[in-house]
Amino acid sequence: MREITSNKTRLWLPSIYNSLKKFPERRAGAGYHSESKAKEYKHVCKRACQRAVDQLRAGALAVEAVTAALVELEDSPFTNAGMGSNLNLSGEIECDASIMDGKSLHFGAVGSISGIKNPVLVANCLLTEAQKGKLSAGRIPPCFLVGRGAHDWAISHGIPPCPSEKMATKFSLSAYKRNKRKMEMAEKMDAGQNQEKKRRQSSENENGSGCLDTVGAVVVDSEGNVAAAVSSGGLAMKHPGRVGQAAHYGCGSWAENACNMNSYSAAVSTSGCGEHLIRTMLARECSAAMQSEDAHQALLEAMQNKFISSPFLVSEDRVLGGVIVLRCCRCVEAQPSPNIQVEFLWSHTTESMCVGYMSAQDSKAKTHISRLPPGTVPGKSLAIEGGVCRLTGIVD
Amino acid sequence: MREITSNKTRLWLPSIYNSLKKFPERRAGAGYHSESKAKEYKHVCKRACQRAVDQLRAGALAVEAVTAALVELEDSPFTNAGMGSNLNLSGEIECDASIMDGKSLHFGAVGSISGIKNPVLVANCLLTEAQKGKLSAGRIPPCFLVGRGAHDWAISHGIPPCPSEKMATKFSLSAYKRNKRKMEMAEKMDAGQNQEKKRRQSSENENGSGCLDTVGAVVVDSEGNVAAAVSSGGLAMKHPGRVGQAAHYGCGSWAENACNMNSYSAAVSTSGCGEHLIRTMLARECSAAMQSEDAHQALLEAMQNKFISSPFLVSEDRVLGGVIVLRCCRCVEAQPSPNIQVEFLWSHTTESMCVGYMSAQDSKAKTHISRLPPGTVPGKSLAIEGGVCRLTGIVD
Repeated sequence: MREITSNKTRLWLPSIYNSLKKFPERRAGAGYHSESKAKEYKHVCKRACQRAVDQLRAGALAVEAVTAALVELEDSPFTNAGMGSNLNLSGEIECDASIMDGKSLHFGAVGSISGIKNPVLVANCLLTEAQKGKLSAGRIPPCFLVGRGAHDWAISHGIPPCPSEKMATKFSLSAYKRNKRKMEMAEKMDAGQNQEKKRRQSSENENGSGCLDTVGAVVVDSEGNVAAAVSSGGLAMKHPGRVGQAAHYGCGSWAENACNMNSYSAAVSTSGCGEHLIRTMLARECSAAMQSEDAHQALLEAMQNKFISSPFLVSEDRVLGGVIVLRCCRCVEAQPSPNIQVEFLWSHTTESMCVGYMSAQDSKAKTHISRLPPGTVPGKSLAIEGGVCRLTGIVD
Repeated sequence: MREITSNKTRLWLPSIYNSLKKFPERRAGAGYHSESKAKEYKHVCKRACQRAVDQLRAGALAVEAVTAALVELEDSPFTNAGMGSNLNLSGEIECDASIMDGKSLHFGAVGSISGIKNPVLVANCLLTEAQKGKLSAGRIPPCFLVGRGAHDWAISHGIPPCPSEKMATKFSLSAYKRNKRKMEMAEKMDAGQNQEKKRRQSSENENGSGCLDTVGAVVVDSEGNVAAAVSSGGLAMKHPGRVGQAAHYGCGSWAENACNMNSYSAAVSTSGCGEHLIRTMLARECSAAMQSEDAHQALLEAMQNKFISSPFLVSEDRVLGGVIVLRCCRCVEAQPSPNIQVEFLWSHTTESMCVGYMSAQDSKAKTHISRLPPGTVPGKSLAIEGGVCRLTGIVD
């Protein structure tokens, strides 16, 4: 663990996950993993950091700041979230997003939502509405809405609609056509074989990682509250109606302030292969691990034992995912002034992951493309990195 | 704990949850909690037991038997699942269901699905398809589908459609009209008050428990595999697109066979207030608790600490839910023959819960309406009961 920042009042982290993949490439041709692509990723991370920090400087709480970061990440045509999301089998965009507030422990999520530019705004609005208590006649407000109902709820709560055709980019449309051709070819090639053999071979031919590039962020504010959010266009060529980990409680995002049972506040955001992240409940597992003394070791063990070697994924050849984790502890009696000790870590089994971070006293964000060590195998090995800092000027 | 059955080869349990409630009454008038209603509940539980046992006798695995039980429970017009489900705000039926197989640890779920008589069949089909491995071109099969996409996937996998109007009963339609009038009256009464006060008063006026009556089952087969399933029409007058705990991984159903990390196999099915069960992940919590030596004590503590007093639900005035839990341990070296020690327990914070159970050597199922002790408050107190038995004639 290296010291990354110090004497900062607030800190937050957005991230974009990425992976070497044969299928489906979401963006134009061979440039996908070029330096220019990495540059774009870093740029959008920086802008997202800036948005969140602007919010924090204006006195916003963690949950508002994390929403602002996600909006910026969703608005980028280079990420698989909001604008420019992957197209599903029918050529449509359906998004998942969720947000969790470590202070109230409330959660909001939308799944398979279309025609909304910023799904995270709907998730956040659900969270906010649920915090207000019961609806008329004692009905309990929903925390998770899907499909057309989610869209209509969003509109009735003042979130503007966005025509689906405006959300697709030329990149996502050409990727769709290319993926469709590839799929048809793969199905034609497999046509003579029996179903079981065909499926096995397909999984050998391709690495099945076309479900990444989604976005997430974790934030701590000056009161020490944590929040986490995640947003995803989901797997390219997914079946319509498929909901991935981004909308799943415990799987996409998790945030818990310290309480009498937990010494540390923790916020986690995950991305990668939705079904792997759902079945291992990776966000909640990583958050629970953060109650151990050594955060780095605990995350390493969680990624190894609860993800790569999880009994829930024994039949998977490659287990693809990444996490960003924030853990904090208020040191109220510290000298010369109270502070919050913050550790942030990231880990991934994908080829690479783009991470950015910034505190409210930084003039600009730092970004980093984390890669698996040379010679290691994506889905079977992991990279882990992180830093620690003390935030002063906190609100008691 | 009392000895309920002994020397049986297999055992399983369906259940229907119920609660005293002012709003919304799903069935006609004052007869709701009459003896005849209890009789109907017991009858459908018996039939569901029989269906599962028929499957087990024919050599089916736990996951198939639990599906058969759920189909019977869904087909009853008296339960809030499948046929006769609650109607949502728009007067439509949208169902949630999930199933988990303790052997493969695979999971399948559908949310907000319309026009399918047996949502559990779709959940089970998703589970089965996922077990076959990757789709063409290395795509990962979905474990959770919602809305129109879930419906279309079901049809393409041979599950017949059912016109929504056939799924509504005269009871659910008249309850909808009554609920709508009550809601309009409540909103009119609150119209002069500010939003916050209005919401608080609404929650005082009503107990907000109109989300119950859903169904679930847990099964152990002669190989010692466990499975759990749950199905629900959701909260009456819910917003379209709202997904409850029945479709939520870790919240509605959970099943894990014993492995080198877990001494016991455990299967759990929950029902009650979806949002409460989601935010506390009650199915998974109860399953994890079953690794303690004293199952009864562990379930009591889980219901108390992880549900009624959960830090996730501090703002809720009443925490409404129920669970059925099966826990088993293979005693391979037992004399005179190997057996499986099975404990099954049920607990609820609702006014009442209907439970049935049967083993493959029973001629008919036993049923029981469990009620909170007199003088206790629903949502703040709990009932807990259960039994233990040894199953012989097991398959090694």
